[in-house]
Amino acid sequence: MRILIVNPNTTASMTEKIGQAARAVAAPGTEIVALDPGDGPVSIEGHYDGAFCLPGLLRCVRNGESEGFDGFVVACFDDPGIGACREIATGPVVGICEAAMVAAALVANGFSVVTTLPRAIPLIEELAHRYGMERRLRRVRAAAIPVLDLEEESAAAAVKVQAEVLRAIAEDGAEAIILGCAGMADLAASLSQRTGVPVIDGVGAAVKLVEALVGLGLRTSKAGAYAWPLPKPFAGDLAEDAFEPPDQG
Amino acid sequence: MRILIVNPNTTASMTEKIGQAARAVAAPGTEIVALDPGDGPVSIEGHYDGAFCLPGLLRCVRNGESEGFDGFVVACFDDPGIGACREIATGPVVGICEAAMVAAALVANGFSVVTTLPRAIPLIEELAHRYGMERRLRRVRAAAIPVLDLEEESAAAAVKVQAEVLRAIAEDGAEAIILGCAGMADLAASLSQRTGVPVIDGVGAAVKLVEALVGLGLRTSKAGAYAWPLPKPFAGDLAEDAFEPPDQG
Amino acid sequence: MRILIVNPNTTASMTEKIGQAARAVAAPGTEIVALDPGDGPVSIEGHYDGAFCLPGLLRCVRNGESEGFDGFVVACFDDPGIGACREIATGPVVGICEAAMVAAALVANGFSVVTTLPRAIPLIEELAHRYGMERRLRRVRAAAIPVLDLEEESAAAAVKVQAEVLRAIAEDGAEAIILGCAGMADLAASLSQRTGVPVIDGVGAAVKLVEALVGLGLRTSKAGAYAWPLPKPFAGDLAEDAFEPPDQG
Amino acid sequence: MRILIVNPNTTASMTEKIGQAARAVAAPGTEIVALDPGDGPVSIEGHYDGAFCLPGLLRCVRNGESEGFDGFVVACFDDPGIGACREIATGPVVGICEAAMVAAALVANGFSVVTTLPRAIPLIEELAHRYGMERRLRRVRAAAIPVLDLEEESAAAAVKVQAEVLRAIAEDGAEAIILGCAGMADLAASLSQRTGVPVIDGVGAAVKLVEALVGLGLRTSKAGAYAWPLPKPFAGDLAEDAFEPPDQG
Amino acid sequence: MRILIVNPNTTASMTEKIGQAARAVAAPGTEIVALDPGDGPVSIEGHYDGAFCLPGLLRCVRNGESEGFDGFVVACFDDPGIGACREIATGPVVGICEAAMVAAALVANGFSVVTTLPRAIPLIEELAHRYGMERRLRRVRAAAIPVLDLEEESAAAAVKVQAEVLRAIAEDGAEAIILGCAGMADLAASLSQRTGVPVIDGVGAAVKLVEALVGLGLRTSKAGAYAWPLPKPFAGDLAEDAFEPPDQG
Amino acid sequence: MRILIVNPNTTASMTEKIGQAARAVAAPGTEIVALDPGDGPVSIEGHYDGAFCLPGLLRCVRNGESEGFDGFVVACFDDPGIGACREIATGPVVGICEAAMVAAALVANGFSVVTTLPRAIPLIEELAHRYGMERRLRRVRAAAIPVLDLEEESAAAAVKVQAEVLRAIAEDGAEAIILGCAGMADLAASLSQRTGVPVIDGVGAAVKLVEALVGLGLRTSKAGAYAWPLPKPFAGDLAEDAFEPPDQG
Repeated sequence: MRILIVNPNTTASMTEKIGQAARAVAAPGTEIVALDPGDGPVSIEGHYDGAFCLPGLLRCVRNGESEGFDGFVVACFDDPGIGACREIATGPVVGICEAAMVAAALVANGFSVVTTLPRAIPLIEELAHRYGMERRLRRVRAAAIPVLDLEEESAAAAVKVQAEVLRAIAEDGAEAIILGCAGMADLAASLSQRTGVPVIDGVGAAVKLVEALVGLGLRTSKAGAYAWPLPKPFAGDLAEDAFEPPDQG
Repeated sequence: MRILIVNPNTTASMTEKIGQAARAVAAPGTEIVALDPGDGPVSIEGHYDGAFCLPGLLRCVRNGESEGFDGFVVACFDDPGIGACREIATGPVVGICEAAMVAAALVANGFSVVTTLPRAIPLIEELAHRYGMERRLRRVRAAAIPVLDLEEESAAAAVKVQAEVLRAIAEDGAEAIILGCAGMADLAASLSQRTGVPVIDGVGAAVKLVEALVGLGLRTSKAGAYAWPLPKPFAGDLAEDAFEPPDQG
Repeated sequence: MRILIVNPNTTASMTEKIGQAARAVAAPGTEIVALDPGDGPVSIEGHYDGAFCLPGLLRCVRNGESEGFDGFVVACFDDPGIGACREIATGPVVGICEAAMVAAALVANGFSVVTTLPRAIPLIEELAHRYGMERRLRRVRAAAIPVLDLEEESAAAAVKVQAEVLRAIAEDGAEAIILGCAGMADLAASLSQRTGVPVIDGVGAAVKLVEALVGLGLRTSKAGAYAWPLPKPFAGDLAEDAFEPPDQG
Repeated sequence: MRILIVNPNTTASMTEKIGQAARAVAAPGTEIVALDPGDGPVSIEGHYDGAFCLPGLLRCVRNGESEGFDGFVVACFDDPGIGACREIATGPVVGICEAAMVAAALVANGFSVVTTLPRAIPLIEELAHRYGMERRLRRVRAAAIPVLDLEEESAAAAVKVQAEVLRAIAEDGAEAIILGCAGMADLAASLSQRTGVPVIDGVGAAVKLVEALVGLGLRTSKAGAYAWPLPKPFAGDLAEDAFEPPDQG
Repeated sequence: MRILIVNPNTTASMTEKIGQAARAVAAPGTEIVALDPGDGPVSIEGHYDGAFCLPGLLRCVRNGESEGFDGFVVACFDDPGIGACREIATGPVVGICEAAMVAAALVANGFSVVTTLPRAIPLIEELAHRYGMERRLRRVRAAAIPVLDLEEESAAAAVKVQAEVLRAIAEDGAEAIILGCAGMADLAASLSQRTGVPVIDGVGAAVKLVEALVGLGLRTSKAGAYAWPLPKPFAGDLAEDAFEPPDQG
Repeated sequence: MRILIVNPNTTASMTEKIGQAARAVAAPGTEIVALDPGDGPVSIEGHYDGAFCLPGLLRCVRNGESEGFDGFVVACFDDPGIGACREIATGPVVGICEAAMVAAALVANGFSVVTTLPRAIPLIEELAHRYGMERRLRRVRAAAIPVLDLEEESAAAAVKVQAEVLRAIAEDGAEAIILGCAGMADLAASLSQRTGVPVIDGVGAAVKLVEALVGLGLRTSKAGAYAWPLPKPFAGDLAEDAFEPPDQG
């Protein structure tokens, strides 16, 4: 099984970290390819950044589809463009926020999310609501660190994340913690050990869910919301992005 | 007051129709400018098309912001990129789906939406839910016409829309009807007259809501979800789209 | 366009203030008439007062309808009798709570309400729920002042309101603030300036929404919940209030 | 125990029927008094009628409170003025819609309501939502009869109600039926027998719930939403209705 | 009328206390029988204990049904096995959590629950949601006492419960308090008196609701979710528990 | 990895079929053991049967825990006793209804469930609500076959299931179908092929989710709702079932 993981921002060290986290949990027969698009923001912090990551993300998935990848992971906690990716993929497409919440809800009753910046809080609350997880979500907390601080050599960012994780356990009644940024993927295991509650990284969770769905022979349904895009002209610089129907469409 | 209306697809006849619908309801002191981006899909039918309209849409709004427009309308019924637009706008930004639902809920208890293709139904249901309108929405119906059929000379598409509007009134208990595509903007008035129930076009509704908000002196809050984007490098072809903080930021 | 604003309590100074707030935001072509009924409570603080404002409120709207007003505003934050007013009005009827929440939700993600007495909190929470705004409402706060304290010469009440507004911004994650009493209409502009977040007065918001709806040619739907009342006898002192069908009924 | 039942319309035959239905289920030690106000609409069909029943209803409850009634039933299926009645009552106040839904939810999983006119449907749906019964309510159906047709000698109205009850059982998956008008109180027993599913009259249900609450020693909480009204002047014809605090306040 | 109350745990002193609480509120003509099964946990604290109380509980109800009891109360605040009991009962079956919430919602707007151990909190929150009470429930609080501490001679547990009740009134905006354990049934009356807000015991509430439903002639609907179990073999030690259809089935 | 699958009914042919379905999708390194308890109903059709499967189910899981199984699947579509199983398991416990809904929601927007008997419909609707899937669930349909008909040699039951699956696709707008009974596990693959939409069997889905969670190193959180049961005496025949704390507790 081959899984393509797209980091929708353009910071190579983060793509590298994401790929490592994915490989750490992948099953023996799973091949992981982790990519980022050449174009777009170096980190995704808010709606504007999130919009501009989409063309690159979709090109990566489109290419991955033609290369026959069995499934796809979108490795940004805002789950950007999942619906669009599903329209152009035969196999399953899983976002790391939804994956982490699914995993948390299976091993705990209520959970909190620890993310980077306060501006991400309303986006994550809205995702929780879209996924039907609003009654499970105890609270979204921000460690008040920019995404790229997680790429620094120093451990300062990790210290702040851990402090917020501890607060979530003590104050929110959270039975599990979700790390709300792909850049925190390397922190989950040690935080789980230190706190004694499940601390969940969405990248790993998404890889395992894709493996599970592919293992079940499930493909993205083309019967409704995720039907193949309709072929049509795209004007100007984006002309190359117009959808060309695949053979199996 | 100057309002910029962006048609996020690249079909000029539709932009023209949208501009006319907007001017037909604008207050005397309101100047309407209707634009579409040079890049992107000729119509927006699904998530994939919706993702690729965003760069062009956001460039239009960014330019409009630097040109001092007082408010913005995004004229596609999927309300694409509203959060991103709000991050880069001082004035209010209103999408036509939300606008139409707000108007409908003020003059009727329950309403139905008549849109173009069945694949739009789940997207509109999800928007209704996001806007807290799920208890007002009786049903989303599709007239089974591609968006660009509404641009044809022949009246065939309009006939199908009218038939579905009549069915919604007869079968759904709908007290008002929303036309679920910017390309239907020219049909609202005559359908209202023929049916005797309010038939609402989102383009007009959004223009009037922007006028209302600007008239109240209200600007997009920068205190949380819609704070200015953080300045940061964008890689590759999108480098020019990196956000440059405005003076008032 | 002529808009009738009914203050459903019987305190003339408050009616005057409401009229001023309305005229301050009305469009050039809009004529504002602000009235209060001769009968009923001097302020509306709870369900009991709210019930006794209805006969007077409805007489005002009935008269306004026969005088050909284009739209109506009910200027009490409990939105009393909106459904009944809509049944007897051709044009739109907008309550100031719903108007303020609609405006807030278009310029901010989450908002708090600052009202007068704690007993109003459950009523406003219930309205937020009825309007589908429960996910947007961060918190309803009471400044612990009786309504008529807002009519005093001294600024003591305004000081308490401002303190609560500041607390809402600091503690609730509110991106906008709604002033939860028509008697606070004069405080919105200065509080907006001082705090830097949108502070919204429902009276102004309702006037602009009525202007918007009338400008769109929308009238209250008579197809269901807001159909004209059925003509029937009213016994005793209320005999004169039995509904006489209008010509257009 | 003495229970005051107020029929908020002014049709004496209906008050009589309601009193009979109440006495038919009351416990041996319960004294039932059924009243209607002298003022107001002969039937309540919509928001406008509902608003004008309130002054008379509240005077009845206020008098009943000073006469020491132990609890109160408001016998109109729109549950008008329940919050206001609770503010002026020491004992419990129960509306017949809420009572019927509570009873139905304890003996069945899902239920349908059969009411009089289609215009009542949205009001009842909104009540179901307010009471947290939206997941239990299968459907609200209207037998298309004006309320006062239920007071006619002929059985025509009863036949229509029965037909709609049978349809609800066959088509809605309803496990119990609620009769959605106080004027149907005499039909419940025979419809239960004929259909074999619980058919519930709200008048009886409310009487038994008041008996239950009084038997538990429970009184309306004065700690928040239902605190005694604040004493204050009422202007004009309603001056006598200003609340005079009781000794126990 | 004969009501069977089953305490699903096997602590006789608690069964005795429950019986006394039931008799204290029962109507003159009501005979109360309080039982506990011979088998199972001495207290129910969590899902595991709750599962093992079911065989004994169901045998008690099955016997009660064949002895002709008119209605049933399940006296554990987790409302275990209510659906199963309803399948095998002709008369109404009421759980004490649902009963207490119904009573609270009729005399107050918002309420809090004070229970024993923190592990019960998520279960009670889930019940509130199932009963449509999530908007009424202010908070579930735990007094941090094991269930059987309530059976001790010393008043230590009662003191802790009272402290938590006072906190709920002061901090949660609770207008009524529900005692979240059948073992607290003897504390409700004195706490009501001391605090001045309704403090509700579910055992008493359930008894009165069963009396009310039986008094209305209502039986558990056999039309859907609570139809009689299908006769079928049970293997092994549970063979005797296979359902034998009653004559009235 | 060793996964224990418990079929909570006592029909050996169904346990065999469930084990085969599990092995068909299990990863190479996964060992599947499928068991049923010696005690209890031969099939689970309703709340009563569901209650009596619990002691046997929990004994199986308790034994499995002491034998060191890494995770557990409860193979009945009512998801009986999941919370109780989680309290006594170190590894993850997944029910087949939740598993199937999680899988469906990742490859489709809306789905329908096809189950056996109509009496299962309200139970499954309630589970969908508990799992936050109420907006995804289009409809629960019953093929009107008793569970054990699926164990017959003849294909009659399978034909009925297929007919209902086709109706769900045609009439509900379902983009995926869930088979709502463990006894249908052998039908999923062929129905997927024939219909072209994902048809999901919960047994397979649950196995893959357990593999995923174990692969992530996630264990059931012991911090709240699923903490180990408290050690305490069990009276009578169930004395052996009292929880003995494991070493790792």
